[in-house]
Amino acid sequence: MEKITSAKNQKIKQWKKLQTSKGRRETNQYVIEGEHLYLEAVKSAMILDTVVVTEKFLSKVNPAHLEQVILVTDDVMHTLSQTETSQGIFCILEIPEQRLPKTFNGKFVLLDGVQDPGNAGTIVRTADAAGFDGVIFGEGSVDPYNDKVVRSMQGSQFHIPIYRGNIRDMMGEFEYIYGTALDKNAKDYREVPQTDNIAVILGNEGNGVSSEVLEATTHNLYIPIIGKAESLNVAIAGGILMYYFV
Amino acid sequence: MEKITSAKNQKIKQWKKLQTSKGRRETNQYVIEGEHLYLEAVKSAMILDTVVVTEKFLSKVNPAHLEQVILVTDDVMHTLSQTETSQGIFCILEIPEQRLPKTFNGKFVLLDGVQDPGNAGTIVRTADAAGFDGVIFGEGSVDPYNDKVVRSMQGSQFHIPIYRGNIRDMMGEFEYIYGTALDKNAKDYREVPQTDNIAVILGNEGNGVSSEVLEATTHNLYIPIIGKAESLNVAIAGGILMYYFV
Repeated sequence: MEKITSAKNQKIKQWKKLQTSKGRRETNQYVIEGEHLYLEAVKSAMILDTVVVTEKFLSKVNPAHLEQVILVTDDVMHTLSQTETSQGIFCILEIPEQRLPKTFNGKFVLLDGVQDPGNAGTIVRTADAAGFDGVIFGEGSVDPYNDKVVRSMQGSQFHIPIYRGNIRDMMGEFEYIYGTALDKNAKDYREVPQTDNIAVILGNEGNGVSSEVLEATTHNLYIPIIGKAESLNVAIAGGILMYYFV
Repeated sequence: MEKITSAKNQKIKQWKKLQTSKGRRETNQYVIEGEHLYLEAVKSAMILDTVVVTEKFLSKVNPAHLEQVILVTDDVMHTLSQTETSQGIFCILEIPEQRLPKTFNGKFVLLDGVQDPGNAGTIVRTADAAGFDGVIFGEGSVDPYNDKVVRSMQGSQFHIPIYRGNIRDMMGEFEYIYGTALDKNAKDYREVPQTDNIAVILGNEGNGVSSEVLEATTHNLYIPIIGKAESLNVAIAGGILMYYFV
């Protein structure tokens, strides 16, 4: 079993590059950290390119993956880790290539410029829980394989497809496509039918869904604000809308 | 107008202490950062103890508050700021003393060990939006005046009361009190009546609502998981449940 004891090792340098969007694009790989996500990946029969562990975590590795295991010292693990307390296990995975379907059957969430990684990851996790059929990261949205998005998804990327694409180009492909908007020209979400073939578009944290997109929807929906808050967090709005269609 | 040019100034040291739970407890003060929260505080007629600004932000301060203004240099502001890009304006406020009502009329959210500041703050913001009457931070929950909670609340602490207290001691005071649980002994949330006098208990990110609390509720509710996610994020679950009762 290969063992790496220096943070200056060439492989460590390569893996560090996966912390950037550019590095992930070039290699088509991303990283998951921690035992929980490792077990989720194994359960979902994901192909693990490499499993990096400290001595202490070696016993937790499935024997089927021992060929890909590289042992590292605690110090090297600390260099690789993007969380404050290193998780002892770190895996490198291929980013699955998801081709956009020609027609969209089922329930989808479209992200139009959602930039906060915690929000985007939580939306994917909620879409998984609500039995949705996919999440599409539109232009201007955070990279779905950013470490913070991955942490918030909690393994849901293994359960539902994540696509990237241009939202405006695909809007005609949905039976019902709903934007979300704060203005009262939009419809109360509880007024639209709870049908199966739908898409919900969630927008940027500061600016909402872009106006060109809002103009091309079936309807735009709002969630009534009863109190004095200006708006809802985008992931919360997404949760309420997705569960409305469950 | 007082001007502070050194980060070693005694006042700066005092204000830095408000970044800790202990410091806030000792002085009964907390901090809001940025123009948006300052304007929210003004709109809500909050009493501002001190307004700290850089030269550039001075023009944004309401003339009614000029007596409390202290000018600081960009460097000093940077020392005080808890965000990466300093916001140029920083206010010190009293923590409002909220006595728990003897009987609870209306809709409440109880946090039983919610520890992530982003989750807790988002729950307060959602409770505000959903027209709830208060949020109670139970023991083991994050400090509601922690800077990250304050950032996620987005000013909702000015709109609805935030209480602290022992959840077990107050459970008898609600007409309907609902725990949240993942196990199927709980009831689908859509089966309970959408009545006005309710409390919803949200639990710790890892362990959920504690078993002693779950045993003393009217019912425990679950949100159906259709896909393969293990659970929902606690703030998302809170959003779905609160909007069910709207």
